[in-house]
Amino acid sequence: MGHDSTESAIERELRGRIAAGPAGARLPSTRSLVARFSVSPLTVQRVVQRLVRDGLIETRPGTGSFISARRQLGRSDFSWQTTALGAARTSMQAVGTAMALEANSPIVMHSAYPSEELLPMRLVRAALARAARGGASVDRPLIGGLPDLRAWFASEIDANAPARASGVSADDVIVVPGSQSALASIFRALAQPGDAIVMESPTYWGAIAAAHQAGLVIVPVARGGAAPDAVALDDAIATSGARLFYAQPHFANPTGALWSAAERAAILAVVRSRDVFLIEDDWAHDFGIDADPRPLVADDTDGHVVYVRSLSKSVSPSLRVGAVIARGPALARIQVDRTVTDLYVSGALQAAALDVVTDPGWRRHLARLRVSLGARRDALAGAIVAQLGPETLTHLPKGGLNLWLRFDDRVDVRDLVARSLAAGVTMAPGSEWFPAEPPGSFVRLNFSGPHPERFAEGIGIVAGLLA
Amino acid sequence: MGHDSTESAIERELRGRIAAGPAGARLPSTRSLVARFSVSPLTVQRVVQRLVRDGLIETRPGTGSFISARRQLGRSDFSWQTTALGAARTSMQAVGTAMALEANSPIVMHSAYPSEELLPMRLVRAALARAARGGASVDRPLIGGLPDLRAWFASEIDANAPARASGVSADDVIVVPGSQSALASIFRALAQPGDAIVMESPTYWGAIAAAHQAGLVIVPVARGGAAPDAVALDDAIATSGARLFYAQPHFANPTGALWSAAERAAILAVVRSRDVFLIEDDWAHDFGIDADPRPLVADDTDGHVVYVRSLSKSVSPSLRVGAVIARGPALARIQVDRTVTDLYVSGALQAAALDVVTDPGWRRHLARLRVSLGARRDALAGAIVAQLGPETLTHLPKGGLNLWLRFDDRVDVRDLVARSLAAGVTMAPGSEWFPAEPPGSFVRLNFSGPHPERFAEGIGIVAGLLA
Repeated sequence: MGHDSTESAIERELRGRIAAGPAGARLPSTRSLVARFSVSPLTVQRVVQRLVRDGLIETRPGTGSFISARRQLGRSDFSWQTTALGAARTSMQAVGTAMALEANSPIVMHSAYPSEELLPMRLVRAALARAARGGASVDRPLIGGLPDLRAWFASEIDANAPARASGVSADDVIVVPGSQSALASIFRALAQPGDAIVMESPTYWGAIAAAHQAGLVIVPVARGGAAPDAVALDDAIATSGARLFYAQPHFANPTGALWSAAERAAILAVVRSRDVFLIEDDWAHDFGIDADPRPLVADDTDGHVVYVRSLSKSVSPSLRVGAVIARGPALARIQVDRTVTDLYVSGALQAAALDVVTDPGWRRHLARLRVSLGARRDALAGAIVAQLGPETLTHLPKGGLNLWLRFDDRVDVRDLVARSLAAGVTMAPGSEWFPAEPPGSFVRLNFSGPHPERFAEGIGIVAGLLA
Repeated sequence: MGHDSTESAIERELRGRIAAGPAGARLPSTRSLVARFSVSPLTVQRVVQRLVRDGLIETRPGTGSFISARRQLGRSDFSWQTTALGAARTSMQAVGTAMALEANSPIVMHSAYPSEELLPMRLVRAALARAARGGASVDRPLIGGLPDLRAWFASEIDANAPARASGVSADDVIVVPGSQSALASIFRALAQPGDAIVMESPTYWGAIAAAHQAGLVIVPVARGGAAPDAVALDDAIATSGARLFYAQPHFANPTGALWSAAERAAILAVVRSRDVFLIEDDWAHDFGIDADPRPLVADDTDGHVVYVRSLSKSVSPSLRVGAVIARGPALARIQVDRTVTDLYVSGALQAAALDVVTDPGWRRHLARLRVSLGARRDALAGAIVAQLGPETLTHLPKGGLNLWLRFDDRVDVRDLVARSLAAGVTMAPGSEWFPAEPPGSFVRLNFSGPHPERFAEGIGIVAGLLA
């Protein structure tokens, strides 16, 4: 210690003078430092050489040491990183504007998370407070998650049809900090860089970004207001050799599409016959309005469906808790990736989430939420039909948080979105949800933001801009 | 809805009978189902075909439908996944036993996280309770993290030497959910699969696993009780073409080594001259005993050092909050990867962490912690020297949580660890910290677990097993 700390003291002394003095000022001589700190000249020389190497001082033989003109206070030079890093695989462009921007406009029809009045805030606050008092505030949970929370996620697969037991058990569940990390892990764990992944188009921007991050090649399959065509899907899988098919079968983001019973059966048949993993992103599980779809994983016998669900949107953005359900070796692969990526999810958040969803108030909240979402959806859809024309609304979804609008192909959507923002209305350009070029002029409107009473006014502003 | 729900009702009816009845039992005829549900025979046929496809029933033309012998209740067949998944890049073997196992033995000298009495639990509980009441329980934080928390992490770089301002600002900080996710993101963002990464050997198993996950080739550089040799490091970088060098300069896990002032200057000079990123994992920042090292990032002018720190070990395993500090394009690359991997860190956890570390009680806690860790280290080291011989203790570290032991090369460490566990003593085989074959028989002992008063007894048991 002694030696190091004397050297440090000398360095501190010199750095203090360098920070305070003007460039070119002379620093104390080696001899004076030797005397003052009772060290050898070699020790002082080591410090001086270090400061020279750092560009802080210059030495002139026989004259002394001086504060360098290009000392640290100058501008840093990061240009070497350009060569070191090479070309980028993903950029911030890949991140949806809902995450990247903080909307300050008065009329928000573009929000990543539902506004506070749609969340069970009383339950969330009580659950976090209980977690603060309990063991969850200190314990590290088991890898994979709290057993009771895993069992709850498994039970939810059958919640709407308990007579049709799915066979999903707590052992098939991995607790994750949200859908996004689940998708990133699944894509990495079940595919190799350069592999193909089939995706519906349009689809969730975060899945597109996660696939790029994993080095996968996206093979888009078009869909209308419903499921992708099973024959087209089969063909895309056969041609690309993809082992992964990512889909949102229920209230898809952004279209709101819900696969019918016939469509899901046909698609599951393709997935089985081609030995493909169907990654079922059940992002809107808690946002049913006129339908309560049963997850596809419930009908999966041999581990073809990898299921993803999150509570971040329906419980609270602060309770970053979700689940992956998978069976067979795929489950083990995903668990390893999750552990290497993140070790585990905060026990306090897991305990609080479990507390919320097992409270009797949770079901009551979901029942109220359904009514609220239905009223918001219908009011916004009504305003669109009345002010933008019925052809603009592609589809009235049976659940979810979004409406998907299509304008005349000549409408420049980026321009429209920018002018709307300037006029106080936020909405999302449809291009963010397409893995390739958008085949038309689309906009997504989210009806879960604050001040739904102003949505109609917002649509009026958009109509004015279009006119 | 109408059509779908009748089909569902028929399917539910049949699945209920399949679940309840014995294999081979006859199911209701198409005609009886048509009559009972008032649907067309085609509708019934669709349901039956689906159940046939699912392997739940068998049809015999002219006779009827029967419960299949290989219905879902039987064993699932995941063997197709073997082909679909191909060979694995990482396995659970890569995950350190401290994470994978739950130690139930009475004498724990192998724990991933310090025991409760070493944590500021009063502050943690109070902070989580405040977070539950405040806006953090509902708000989504800005990407990058809470501004005040980012500013706090930046200020910590200079905390022990404020006169030597590092120039690190809140803008250079990204809040992450812990060191592990930081390392996974940094390796992915700053390198491409197939690239080389230089690492000290031995080093943290989680960094080894994260490098494998990112598809990197590890180039180990040996170190003794101190820093790797600068000439050897320079040579390894030049030969491999690595752009990344991962290191723990302060109280390294597992050895406890602390780079001297001369070593850090020499290594920084290599890093600068070779245009390499030094990933500084400051995992034990809060665990100084006889030294308070200043992070290397404080001496970095041109963005060569990427700094990682976590509060999970020093505040609470439940407050999964840490930080990455980087400058230049590297910062942007890492931020994109974090966003695509995880979107953001829970605002409630960020607010609670900020609350803990800005409470006056936090500094008082750290002062007490230093004394506790010093006493634990010295007691364990004393027992080792007395019962296993002074040559067994490689080094008395000035901080951190671990002692690094070396036995005679003929000792089979896996066997010793297994027999110790059977005798009620957990310790970690040294092989987990080597990216390649261990060059000797090493064991890591962690002195932050519960019941330190029994450590000497544990060492006695190990000595007995060795005798």
